[in-house]
Amino acid sequence: MTGLDTPDLLAQLSLEEKAALTSGLDFWHTVPVDRLGIPSVMVADGPHGLRKQGSQADHVGIGGSNPATCFPPAVGLASSWNRALVRRVGEALGHEGRAEELAVILGPGINIKRSPLCGRNFEYLSEDPLVAGELAVAMVGGIQSQGVGTSVKHYAVNNQETDRLRVNAVVDERTLREIYLPAFERTVKQAKPWTVMASYNKVNGEWVSQDPWLLTEVLRDEWGYEGMTVSDWGAVVDRVKGLAAGLDLEMPGHQDKTPAEVVAAVREGRLDEADLDRAVGRVLDLISRAMTEQAEPAAPVDHDTQHAIAKAAALESIVLLRNESRGSTTSSARPLLPLDPAASERLLVVGELARTPRYQGAGSSQVNPTQVSDALSALQRTVGDRLTFAAGYDVALDEATDHALLDEAVAAAADADVLVVFAGLPSRYESEGYDRTHLDLPPNQRALIDAMADLDKPTVVVLSNGSAVTLAGWHDRVDAVVEGWLLGQAGGEALADVLLGVVNPSGKLTETLPLALEDNPSFGNFPGALGEVRYGEGVFVGYRGYDTRHQAVAYPFGHGLSYTRYDYTNLDVRVIDPDATAETEEAVLVAVTVTNVGDVDGSEIVQLYVGDPQSAVARPVHELRGFSKESLEVGHSHRVRFTLSGRDLSYWHPAERRWFLEPGAFVIEVGASARDIRGTATIEITGGDRATTHLTSASTYEEWHDDPVGGPLLAEHFERHGKTMVEPEVIGNFPLDRLAAFEGMSLSTEQLADLVADLRARSDQR
Amino acid sequence: MTGLDTPDLLAQLSLEEKAALTSGLDFWHTVPVDRLGIPSVMVADGPHGLRKQGSQADHVGIGGSNPATCFPPAVGLASSWNRALVRRVGEALGHEGRAEELAVILGPGINIKRSPLCGRNFEYLSEDPLVAGELAVAMVGGIQSQGVGTSVKHYAVNNQETDRLRVNAVVDERTLREIYLPAFERTVKQAKPWTVMASYNKVNGEWVSQDPWLLTEVLRDEWGYEGMTVSDWGAVVDRVKGLAAGLDLEMPGHQDKTPAEVVAAVREGRLDEADLDRAVGRVLDLISRAMTEQAEPAAPVDHDTQHAIAKAAALESIVLLRNESRGSTTSSARPLLPLDPAASERLLVVGELARTPRYQGAGSSQVNPTQVSDALSALQRTVGDRLTFAAGYDVALDEATDHALLDEAVAAAADADVLVVFAGLPSRYESEGYDRTHLDLPPNQRALIDAMADLDKPTVVVLSNGSAVTLAGWHDRVDAVVEGWLLGQAGGEALADVLLGVVNPSGKLTETLPLALEDNPSFGNFPGALGEVRYGEGVFVGYRGYDTRHQAVAYPFGHGLSYTRYDYTNLDVRVIDPDATAETEEAVLVAVTVTNVGDVDGSEIVQLYVGDPQSAVARPVHELRGFSKESLEVGHSHRVRFTLSGRDLSYWHPAERRWFLEPGAFVIEVGASARDIRGTATIEITGGDRATTHLTSASTYEEWHDDPVGGPLLAEHFERHGKTMVEPEVIGNFPLDRLAAFEGMSLSTEQLADLVADLRARSDQR
Repeated sequence: MTGLDTPDLLAQLSLEEKAALTSGLDFWHTVPVDRLGIPSVMVADGPHGLRKQGSQADHVGIGGSNPATCFPPAVGLASSWNRALVRRVGEALGHEGRAEELAVILGPGINIKRSPLCGRNFEYLSEDPLVAGELAVAMVGGIQSQGVGTSVKHYAVNNQETDRLRVNAVVDERTLREIYLPAFERTVKQAKPWTVMASYNKVNGEWVSQDPWLLTEVLRDEWGYEGMTVSDWGAVVDRVKGLAAGLDLEMPGHQDKTPAEVVAAVREGRLDEADLDRAVGRVLDLISRAMTEQAEPAAPVDHDTQHAIAKAAALESIVLLRNESRGSTTSSARPLLPLDPAASERLLVVGELARTPRYQGAGSSQVNPTQVSDALSALQRTVGDRLTFAAGYDVALDEATDHALLDEAVAAAADADVLVVFAGLPSRYESEGYDRTHLDLPPNQRALIDAMADLDKPTVVVLSNGSAVTLAGWHDRVDAVVEGWLLGQAGGEALADVLLGVVNPSGKLTETLPLALEDNPSFGNFPGALGEVRYGEGVFVGYRGYDTRHQAVAYPFGHGLSYTRYDYTNLDVRVIDPDATAETEEAVLVAVTVTNVGDVDGSEIVQLYVGDPQSAVARPVHELRGFSKESLEVGHSHRVRFTLSGRDLSYWHPAERRWFLEPGAFVIEVGASARDIRGTATIEITGGDRATTHLTSASTYEEWHDDPVGGPLLAEHFERHGKTMVEPEVIGNFPLDRLAAFEGMSLSTEQLADLVADLRARSDQR
Repeated sequence: MTGLDTPDLLAQLSLEEKAALTSGLDFWHTVPVDRLGIPSVMVADGPHGLRKQGSQADHVGIGGSNPATCFPPAVGLASSWNRALVRRVGEALGHEGRAEELAVILGPGINIKRSPLCGRNFEYLSEDPLVAGELAVAMVGGIQSQGVGTSVKHYAVNNQETDRLRVNAVVDERTLREIYLPAFERTVKQAKPWTVMASYNKVNGEWVSQDPWLLTEVLRDEWGYEGMTVSDWGAVVDRVKGLAAGLDLEMPGHQDKTPAEVVAAVREGRLDEADLDRAVGRVLDLISRAMTEQAEPAAPVDHDTQHAIAKAAALESIVLLRNESRGSTTSSARPLLPLDPAASERLLVVGELARTPRYQGAGSSQVNPTQVSDALSALQRTVGDRLTFAAGYDVALDEATDHALLDEAVAAAADADVLVVFAGLPSRYESEGYDRTHLDLPPNQRALIDAMADLDKPTVVVLSNGSAVTLAGWHDRVDAVVEGWLLGQAGGEALADVLLGVVNPSGKLTETLPLALEDNPSFGNFPGALGEVRYGEGVFVGYRGYDTRHQAVAYPFGHGLSYTRYDYTNLDVRVIDPDATAETEEAVLVAVTVTNVGDVDGSEIVQLYVGDPQSAVARPVHELRGFSKESLEVGHSHRVRFTLSGRDLSYWHPAERRWFLEPGAFVIEVGASARDIRGTATIEITGGDRATTHLTSASTYEEWHDDPVGGPLLAEHFERHGKTMVEPEVIGNFPLDRLAAFEGMSLSTEQLADLVADLRARSDQR
């Protein structure tokens, strides 16, 4: 099938038809125009698995859907830090989407995890925009390689569920540019998603769904986006303003309302028909693209192959947080994990979540999986009779400890050599639609962990949760902790493989695990109140805040253990362009050798951080600027190389409103986590960007005094007018034009104008 | 002398004369109009002592001045928490001001200590607005009781020196109302200062010196201020706008410029002459008031009496931070302080600051003292030959340790039984005009403290500093720490009296001492950059931040030890108006008995905190709502009583824009510091304020669902239109009018209007 001739169709469509095309047909489809051969295309939820609703769809679009592979949700998948793996999952998703005849899969979700409380964090990738952006590029690339579009969401600054449809996010532009927009920017520029989804909220007083700055100036004019924008479901407030601002498609459709409003607005001159045409053109382009790319019949989906991909992804999503030797005194003993399936030890698995896994989050992303594996069965297959199980708690009754279940678990533990406790968050703790108010595990699960820890036997805790939980109180009393996040339908098998050492864990944290909620940088500002949320911590989000304040954390950003060890050697940092500006593509080369010095093969996530110890604005102590996951056999080495651009050294200059490389020293760090830095170098950039604002009459006495040209010139003018230069000290921060009232220091308006003109003349000569 | 007839004069003054009167004559005087008998009056700096410049004045108004008593700067005086003492100091200041024929003393400074880095913190009272406000009321009352005016400064949100003349402070209104304005509000309402000084900076985009909201709406219309406003020296940007906004007097005078601008603006209709007249009227009222109140000849000033008052104030300004028993193992030993002058111990006093005291800060507040006492001489007078002294460091050379001086100190210590180390900040570390960038003591002083601590002898450290310094690294290695702040000209004697136990210390901290700079709530946001500073921590300033985040601190707000001990018993908390609203004057009565259970007489500062564990906005875990300094002989008790108003329980409602008492539970705490709570009670307010905003079509499904009236009504309307109610969950946060696109849940615009009308009708019936 060929595509559509958009310009031709635009000429033939009536105003009413065009207006209709910019709103959906219903919950999941675009409007067809049969007389012109424009088909209806379908979209469906699906960041980690399709949620294609059939005719049985419920009226709020949340109910049952066709069976589909449930891959690990973003919180898990991102912990792999593995671009190739994420792309492979994207390809598998796209493959299913093609088979289901979807034009667009509504994902990935790439909002920054500002607070661990956000109920939808499990759908998001990281607290760091580089990780979020790089993995989104991989995901979008993977899905779209199958001829199915994506919808990168939720653009922008939709970092909470509380009051998400009304809240006004108050964020300064530097914070937007450095934290909340870069993942979108990277994805748009590098992966060209077919659609971008406008979020529900307001940013700095304007609804995103009708904000020309976000939807057109930034997204299209600056980033060069050429795809379609679509509203989040129900995000449209004023459809006419939205069209003018650059919102192409309203979803779900509201055919009995908004098309008529749009027609009226065009007729009454309140909306330029060109704005409407532009939106219609983008909708037609999308439909056309789906027609073209899906011209061939879809390949059949083999659910076992898809499940295997889901398992491969789950394996890399697991983060080994802690792995101490059994019993703290015998230092020669090996770490508790992996468990040795060949040993004659008796294993007690406790916790309902081992049998009834929590493998995805609640809300619009919820997949109807093709199959689900649980860790208990998977462990039993290998360990056999030496494994016993006790539920320990009722996952549906979290506040009240069921003492019968607890006692049963304690009794069962008497005969066991090793205890494996499964704990985590019940599904109603985290969901689209609301945020958590604390980070704690349910009391009945805490009671189980405490009871097991009291027994003083080798103990592993395996967690299932969509965002950070507090480990305080029990963490130090157990030997190993496995962060299993949400792992999708193959998570149970994957956890068993990691626990038993079939697979060496290689995931790392893409979000800091704080000691307590109140340590989080957004604490006190999240989730705001009464319709407004202030992003008061600015750029100090996640590790940027924790690390800059030198706060103790449970586990730092980037942390994850392995069953082997890696050495970092021969760090080499070279400035290849000392005159670099923010525009420079290649400014610094970094190389480091990573070696697997342990006993098993594994994969190491090598991280590159950059710090700017001196700058005009307050900057985080370091920021992730590169990462690479290296697969290393025992004894093998890789030379890992990174290129830093000028932008990687830059900040967003709030006054100049552009990226700005301030010359000076930069600290380059390579490490295994944000707090496990293995090599550091300091470089010097002598070039950099220059502010366009020179000295003026509103510049301070000190700024003039300290300027190599301005200082002597001011002294000259002072002398001419009978004034005397003094040391800045107390009056140094007076702008010259405000010193006018200080007799001995005052130049008249005319004299000041003379001074500035003189400076300009001298600067031009240079 | 009688005053002026302002209405009559206004009628007689020419436009030019009126314009001239709203700008100063020069640096320190108002303009006279001889033909109408309007004299010139003089103002002078002087929050803690007069700085009246004679004809020898330098050209930036910072140079030499007439000798005057240097009382403890605000940082010291506030630590007394003693309203009567502060009033007495105010009277003494006013007395000297009268004798110097000053109309107005330019103080007190009452800005909130947002960051310990602020270079002018030594001139400010507290990080807490109640402490700042109450002590300012006492100071203004004291000064003005002598017939001399005050200038409460710097109104408003001038919390840093960095870029103070240009910086735009971005602060939400709730934070302004709860933190940065209340001290001004209290002082204006209760003490009626003759003048209020407009600060240099911008607030939320507008220069304070021309902000009608701050200068007229809030200050006059809301708070009822009737005095004069004056610009900080050089704060005027646009004189015409300033007059329209409510800035009465420009200082210093700019007679060759602004009067002509004002005349032109009136003539051209850009400025209402009534605005000018109002300003002139207030200037004339001030002059008139000075004439009337200063009609009688001033009483002569006895400098010895004044010095005695300065000493009394210094004694209560000292805060005993730490006082451990000598040698940590002998638990029965008495604490190191007070030193026993009768004992035969040999005392080594080390540190140049013992001989050359730092007793005030730098900048416009710098007083030319009538005499200065140093601690070394004062100690020598009592201890005599058993005291030796070594300088230990050169206070002018802070970075480089002078090893000869250090070695000399170590050698001298060999013969000593007790070491008293004087340390602190050199004057150039803190000054008007710039902020600190770290909180550390100079390296050479740190080296001295470390060297002394290494000797393992009983050691006291006495600090002289204008704002918090870090104690980390050495604090735990010494036995006692005395926070001497800046104590004015009698500080040396006062320190000796406290060290030797002649006087029992009774000061407490009005600012938290953090463990590290990065713990401060404003860290990362202070002092902003490039012309803007975001108050991102909102209301979580000082202990409101530290305590709510449960951060470890060096010493909490309100902390201070004594040579005796106090018991708190019989806390009684009574709600006298359970229906209280924010307007209620008396809502809760609190009483507690405080008893001196130690061996010496003393004074205890009893503190009352209130917490609101559940509210619609994020609130600090507790806030100071009352304090009382109780003088108690050994074995004696006082019943201390507090009354809480409705406002004391309220927050500023950002949407309603008014004080709002949200009904529910409140926690009432009485304690010896913010972290030494001695009694707690929980009360319930059942009345409270009600939001004026009822349910609308923009209210969420959940808000309707959960409302006792709205819920059933919505169900009724849903049924009528063939829709079905569901549990809120994922769609709960959708406003009804945004659910319109969700077929099963949507009501049309007309149906929604019906629903809301129905609700209004039912609400009106109730």
